[in-house]
Amino acid sequence: MLYEFPMDSQLSKLLEFLRFPSISTDSAYADDVKHCAQWLTRQLQGIGLEAQLHSTPGHPIVTAKNEHKAGRRTVLIYGHYDVQPVDPLSLWTHPPFEPHIENDTIFARGATDNKGQIMAHILGVQEALTRGALPVNLIFLIEGEEECGSTHLEEFLVTHREELRCDIVAVSDTGMVGRGIPTLTYGLRGIAALELKVTGPTTDLHSGIYGGAVANPVTMLTRLLATLHDDSGHVTVEGFYDDVKPIEDWERKAWASLPLHDEELIRLTGAPRLFGEAGYTSFERTWARPTAEINGIGGGYQGLGTKTVLPSEAFAKLTFRLVPDQRSHAVIEKVKTHLQKHVSPAVRLEITGGHNGEPYLTNPHSGFGKAAQLALQKTFGRDVALIREGGSIPIVQNFKNTLGAETLLLGLALPDCRAHAPNENFPIENFRAGIRLNQVLLEELGHVG
Amino acid sequence: MLYEFPMDSQLSKLLEFLRFPSISTDSAYADDVKHCAQWLTRQLQGIGLEAQLHSTPGHPIVTAKNEHKAGRRTVLIYGHYDVQPVDPLSLWTHPPFEPHIENDTIFARGATDNKGQIMAHILGVQEALTRGALPVNLIFLIEGEEECGSTHLEEFLVTHREELRCDIVAVSDTGMVGRGIPTLTYGLRGIAALELKVTGPTTDLHSGIYGGAVANPVTMLTRLLATLHDDSGHVTVEGFYDDVKPIEDWERKAWASLPLHDEELIRLTGAPRLFGEAGYTSFERTWARPTAEINGIGGGYQGLGTKTVLPSEAFAKLTFRLVPDQRSHAVIEKVKTHLQKHVSPAVRLEITGGHNGEPYLTNPHSGFGKAAQLALQKTFGRDVALIREGGSIPIVQNFKNTLGAETLLLGLALPDCRAHAPNENFPIENFRAGIRLNQVLLEELGHVG
Repeated sequence: MLYEFPMDSQLSKLLEFLRFPSISTDSAYADDVKHCAQWLTRQLQGIGLEAQLHSTPGHPIVTAKNEHKAGRRTVLIYGHYDVQPVDPLSLWTHPPFEPHIENDTIFARGATDNKGQIMAHILGVQEALTRGALPVNLIFLIEGEEECGSTHLEEFLVTHREELRCDIVAVSDTGMVGRGIPTLTYGLRGIAALELKVTGPTTDLHSGIYGGAVANPVTMLTRLLATLHDDSGHVTVEGFYDDVKPIEDWERKAWASLPLHDEELIRLTGAPRLFGEAGYTSFERTWARPTAEINGIGGGYQGLGTKTVLPSEAFAKLTFRLVPDQRSHAVIEKVKTHLQKHVSPAVRLEITGGHNGEPYLTNPHSGFGKAAQLALQKTFGRDVALIREGGSIPIVQNFKNTLGAETLLLGLALPDCRAHAPNENFPIENFRAGIRLNQVLLEELGHVG
Repeated sequence: MLYEFPMDSQLSKLLEFLRFPSISTDSAYADDVKHCAQWLTRQLQGIGLEAQLHSTPGHPIVTAKNEHKAGRRTVLIYGHYDVQPVDPLSLWTHPPFEPHIENDTIFARGATDNKGQIMAHILGVQEALTRGALPVNLIFLIEGEEECGSTHLEEFLVTHREELRCDIVAVSDTGMVGRGIPTLTYGLRGIAALELKVTGPTTDLHSGIYGGAVANPVTMLTRLLATLHDDSGHVTVEGFYDDVKPIEDWERKAWASLPLHDEELIRLTGAPRLFGEAGYTSFERTWARPTAEINGIGGGYQGLGTKTVLPSEAFAKLTFRLVPDQRSHAVIEKVKTHLQKHVSPAVRLEITGGHNGEPYLTNPHSGFGKAAQLALQKTFGRDVALIREGGSIPIVQNFKNTLGAETLLLGLALPDCRAHAPNENFPIENFRAGIRLNQVLLEELGHVG
């Protein structure tokens, strides 16, 4: 393979990591996931850490630590070595597990999410170790099930609570607001999922014979779903916004000054225009306001042409993105009450629950928050953007509950890194910055009083 | 295959007919439709008629006639050999194209709609021919596209106008109001079909990253569809009811005395309760009032579990049942105007047309109407119920326009024959009655002055 620029050992190491097809959700790749975990364990041992591979009923968890000394801060760096599936494969310009470098950017599944970012942490630690002992007690916790629900991590946190106890967690699995702009994420949305099934007649009916005298479950489902919002995008479930923490003035100001604009969002998504809750900007809508989203709907005839049925049932899959201080169970109860109140009595409604996770908010101006800002500022030589993100990383809430530690989110992904999509990529510049950042970060965290 | 009672050649013939999976709307079955048409042509030739298979750009049309003589009435018997799709297949107790007999009832796709009924006509003619010449000039016209819009029949009527010219048309593709109750249908609803596609972002988006700032096409589709009705079941499209002919007093009275009641409709459909336009009975709602029905909807993730996407598109299939004196093109225009007015500008809406057909109303007290009532009364030995039906047989309007002939609708389906649905069935008793009826009918029509 020819590269446009000189390879070095750090880049080679990342490319080696990217060649494992460690797709966790598909059991056909279970051996690849395991080999990847074994390789990773050897790398961590190779840089001088005490590393261990822990089997679970699912994919292995890898941990590593330096020699811990009393009187120092303990920092846990969390990441994952598993990756998303690659379909649709046909949309990849190059094979997803044969890393390709073009325009100083690495293209491969996992390049940004999360192999590139966790490898930057590991190599940063290696650099620091070549110059002497680390300034902190360090723990690496790298799982292999992040892309399929972190099924066994929560239990692992509980059973290994003592070994994993720490003062602060650092995670690089979020994004930067733009190229070269250091970004600290201090909030994440939570999630609550529901599935609705509306049933009417026992079987599909002839819409000519019965249409007009029997309620249509698809019609009744659409009428029910249409009660979730008003015309200006507000969610109309009673009490939905009760626990929503208002956006602080400093947040509004900070976000208004960010260089990612609505025109860019339109270009990235291809939507004809942006739309959301009246009275809020796009950042406010996606980072600090809850949503009610229909992820899927189905009912009746879906084939080609016309089939004149009055369908017997219809379903919808809903998720609600939650923000501080909403709680998933309380929101689910309010939504259920709303749906049961608004559904037509001419059909039956079944509601089943799905997964959920709580929103997260930490103080970016705490001691650790300031240390992270300083490390980012020194690494990139620019002012740090303080943002929240719209996605959910439920494990962050577990770190708080089980280990008692807050989490610093120092992501290095760019808006067009295409995580979870074909042609996932990671700029080499961000990989190098991550290696530098990690060294400065451990220094700064070591100084927090 | 074991049957509970002795098979005879008439029943065997019907079962043979039912084994063809002649699904016209799905091109995967084009060969089966053709083989069915070829088989049917041979049957008509076999009973002594001059039969012909006519190719069309779609599925073939089969015609047959006896020797026509001057001074006699010409009767055209119309039917169709194509059938509806069978999904959801899992709800069929027996495979839809392997006819199963249980409780003196034939279960198969097409058993009632329309193979059982058209075969009764053919076998009735065969019976009559074994006793001598027919009392009328007879024409059979049996198409293979009734379930997908009769696309090529209208042109066929025009190009074969002279050979098809007739005094009256007889069609058995409607129902009886109850077991053993002879029924003459003098009105049908029309139909107008539309398909909607709502698109937003170029691909499915991460609902965490973009949810709240980009309109969700599924949400916008449900909100759009919810504007079609008010809470009391009226269609809210402007001008929708403008041309609706009021129900006559004698019709209200006749229908109120019919033995099929709402409790029976609830039992037949399994719906938790009946629901429809306020101010009308179930018969009035299904026979003489127009509807807006969603036949199918889809969008986003439909698999198991949760996928947190903001879908890029969603679709819905709509049909409108029309009543005299509505006209399909005028209704379609009104609906399009309504949809374009109410769709959110944050998504794109594409509307494509489907098949349509005009409603039909004839006078049940005309000479031919009285002859049909007499034939029904003689066959069943009971007073005849005069009704309209909610389904659509658009071609009936074409018979009037192109051939200048009214149509007698002498259906033999029972309310629980499950046309278009899983476990479609036809009682053997009705099949036998149809064979008898056809002989008496040709006699009576031959006498009309």
